[in-house]
Amino acid sequence: MNVDLFEDERLDYLLAENLRIIQSPSVFAFSLDAVLLSKFAYMPIQKGNVIDLCTGNAVIPLLLSSRSKAQITGVEIQERLYDMGRRSVEYNSLSDQIRMIHGDLKDMPSVLGYQKYDVVTCNPPYFKTPQKREQNENEHLAIARHEIHCTLEDAVRVSSQLVKPGGKVAFVHRPGRLLEITEYMKQYKIEPKRIQFVYPKKGRESNTLLIEGTKGGQPDLKILPPLFVYDENHEYTKEIRTILYGEE
Amino acid sequence: MNVDLFEDERLDYLLAENLRIIQSPSVFAFSLDAVLLSKFAYMPIQKGNVIDLCTGNAVIPLLLSSRSKAQITGVEIQERLYDMGRRSVEYNSLSDQIRMIHGDLKDMPSVLGYQKYDVVTCNPPYFKTPQKREQNENEHLAIARHEIHCTLEDAVRVSSQLVKPGGKVAFVHRPGRLLEITEYMKQYKIEPKRIQFVYPKKGRESNTLLIEGTKGGQPDLKILPPLFVYDENHEYTKEIRTILYGEE
Repeated sequence: MNVDLFEDERLDYLLAENLRIIQSPSVFAFSLDAVLLSKFAYMPIQKGNVIDLCTGNAVIPLLLSSRSKAQITGVEIQERLYDMGRRSVEYNSLSDQIRMIHGDLKDMPSVLGYQKYDVVTCNPPYFKTPQKREQNENEHLAIARHEIHCTLEDAVRVSSQLVKPGGKVAFVHRPGRLLEITEYMKQYKIEPKRIQFVYPKKGRESNTLLIEGTKGGQPDLKILPPLFVYDENHEYTKEIRTILYGEE
Repeated sequence: MNVDLFEDERLDYLLAENLRIIQSPSVFAFSLDAVLLSKFAYMPIQKGNVIDLCTGNAVIPLLLSSRSKAQITGVEIQERLYDMGRRSVEYNSLSDQIRMIHGDLKDMPSVLGYQKYDVVTCNPPYFKTPQKREQNENEHLAIARHEIHCTLEDAVRVSSQLVKPGGKVAFVHRPGRLLEITEYMKQYKIEPKRIQFVYPKKGRESNTLLIEGTKGGQPDLKILPPLFVYDENHEYTKEIRTILYGEE
């Protein structure tokens, strides 16, 4: 199958899955965090409606499609990234399962409807918008990494509006913002239920936070076993290799 | 040196330290959690004022005395436990450094003064007070484990009243109550700065939470490396043996 690739775009293998994904070093390439979120989030197996906000080049919808037959919607505000995602979905012949939307997530509840989704996933920008001069000079990367178009509160509020009562919402973020994210989740009635901390290696502080909550759920928080990314030899640990490549 | 021991009391070795502690299976025996808190909490080395609330048989003041020359106050509401602690302090010839107070922690700010302490530590009761019939039938153990005389909010509020601006407050608790404890800390102006999760063994959920905050501090939360208690052979891990026995 042919695919149009623009500028410095590449058609990369999507890890363990028999999938390919269009990426570009100068526009957007997916991170390990997105892969971890796509493995961490609860997924219905046979049916349901899933939505991924801040979807970028559709890495999370593509990965989720290997775990579930649910209908998956990806929402991306940057047209350039949306278009990469749309072409990747087409290339992988997943247009029946994955729908890409170019738009602002804040408009999605009125566009798509309130409380329609069983699961919401979101890998939002991690950094509060700093002074213009501190932002990444590449606008595509700046929008993906800084809260220019979407704050953490936006991401949590919109997720809460989209998810059904009893449905699940999962985020990946930085541990330094744990208390903000749990406060917003509480405020918008998403009860935090599962947290997993990811550590770059043994003896180091956590640098990634995975968190999932239930809309209207009762308090009952579990802290899952920690995940280590690299071993003493600076190689991926067995658990990360399993997530990335399916090695056992 | 002689010591009076009552009923089923024992004079136990206090782990790595050259200390002994009076315990009783039917009244109170210290837990690993208290030991972990006494290693986790920031301690001034040369001088300062430290207070340990819900001190039980003074296990935390005794352990802290090996890390610091600060003056240490222990507060315990149960006279029987207070008396065990008082006798242990005396037996170890630590009466110059450790003062035991028999009283309700809620009275301590007016008795001892507001904002006088550099560090507050507290291993509070973990369980919300259930129906009477679900409580431990042993009143001593029930008071130590259930929020009969001291709720989590009491512990946080009083700690905040006792600590100096910029001083540190450290708690050990259950991870299921993480969000409550961080909410109370925020409410009473103790900014959470360091969290460490303790796991019974690899692959299991965390069962213990260590958390420290700074009175009036700025948000900057770190998630420290995880601590595992047992290895695959059901023996203490090296890191726990180091904490318990000082083995390297």
